[in-house]
Amino acid sequence: MSTALRLFDLAGADDDIRFSPNCWRTRLAIAHKGLTVETIAWRFTEKDAIASSGQGKVPVLVAGDTWLHESWDIAEYLEDNYTDRPSLFGCPQGRAMARFVNQWANEVLHPAVARVVVPDIPAALHEKDRAYFRTTREAAFGRSFEAIAAERDQALAALSRALSPLRSTLATQPFIAGAAPAYADHAVFGAFQWARVISHATLTMADDPVSAWIDRMLDAYDGLARSAKRIGKL
Amino acid sequence: MSTALRLFDLAGADDDIRFSPNCWRTRLAIAHKGLTVETIAWRFTEKDAIASSGQGKVPVLVAGDTWLHESWDIAEYLEDNYTDRPSLFGCPQGRAMARFVNQWANEVLHPAVARVVVPDIPAALHEKDRAYFRTTREAAFGRSFEAIAAERDQALAALSRALSPLRSTLATQPFIAGAAPAYADHAVFGAFQWARVISHATLTMADDPVSAWIDRMLDAYDGLARSAKRIGKL
Repeated sequence: MSTALRLFDLAGADDDIRFSPNCWRTRLAIAHKGLTVETIAWRFTEKDAIASSGQGKVPVLVAGDTWLHESWDIAEYLEDNYTDRPSLFGCPQGRAMARFVNQWANEVLHPAVARVVVPDIPAALHEKDRAYFRTTREAAFGRSFEAIAAERDQALAALSRALSPLRSTLATQPFIAGAAPAYADHAVFGAFQWARVISHATLTMADDPVSAWIDRMLDAYDGLARSAKRIGKL
Repeated sequence: MSTALRLFDLAGADDDIRFSPNCWRTRLAIAHKGLTVETIAWRFTEKDAIASSGQGKVPVLVAGDTWLHESWDIAEYLEDNYTDRPSLFGCPQGRAMARFVNQWANEVLHPAVARVVVPDIPAALHEKDRAYFRTTREAAFGRSFEAIAAERDQALAALSRALSPLRSTLATQPFIAGAAPAYADHAVFGAFQWARVISHATLTMADDPVSAWIDRMLDAYDGLARSAKRIGKL
């Protein structure tokens, strides 16, 4: 297949600040397949631009006439439509277990990282997104950004506890998928890239096996994640 | 290979009450490989019987002259030494991701289930194990069995939250490993079999996708787990 791929990719006020953990999953999966993609800077409130996907969140991948959304479904699409390229899952059992890793990232890791990084996000957003972001996220957390920011130390401690199974796994093998990264790594790493691009926080200690894995993921795919623009540091 | 396998398997006062989550992983993995095993009822304080393994916990699997311990290492041994039998992992990526699932079970699921079931265990133990069990477990929890028992409702609520990624995964596929059970399922199911054999508690609601999966795991391998003896019900 040589269908052109276009990805609606969440951006800040600066077009080059691409900070969505779920969009990063898709970008890494596309790189894993050795494919190229045109990314389109998109803001939270630009729902019309992705209306053809039938919903209002990114990543949205457009492959020819096909509009895809939901990072997991996009990964399965890439796996099933580019079978001659490196596998994202390895085998049917691997695909099924990657789903568990994906769900752990969605339901445990993302909320834990969000508690740390969300207060840093509004400053980087496009003006038109700020009210939307604050309203939806404060409702989800049940408290203000200021209250969340005041709990950063506790949030970092809770994140460190939540990382326990990832940490012990990476103490015994270089990647979640084994000797080389694959979709399980993309699904988890997206959250760390989110923090790296948009936040002033450091999520893991230097001697944490997770930190060494983050470094390997930044190097993977010709340094795709490492080369991403980040917000100005404090 | 036709090496006879012997498994030291944690038992209660009743030889037929086999309740170790980690031993259940091994029993299911052996069944998955289509192998037979002689299980030996073993109690916590019988350290001498397994001294040849170089440590004091079960499962301990004896394969000819080889003494193996640690459920994960035993699974890898079975996979690598019975390559003509059904795979526990599917592929190298699957093995690596099964490790993550195994670590999640060890570090998130087991502590959460322990908070619910531990107070039920002493009544089923051999007399010689009771003091050892209370001393080591109360030290680990930092509080008495009576205090733990008083918090069962909170423990069940915390367990339900911890099951979130398992629940959402099993809402989309029949087993953690996909269409059929494999080691990722064994690693997680051990905790539920632990509760089923030794506790009066019900860990999951009837309409939980996890409950339907437990039922499938009880049926798997000719009903191996379902046929296990349980403590008398209240």
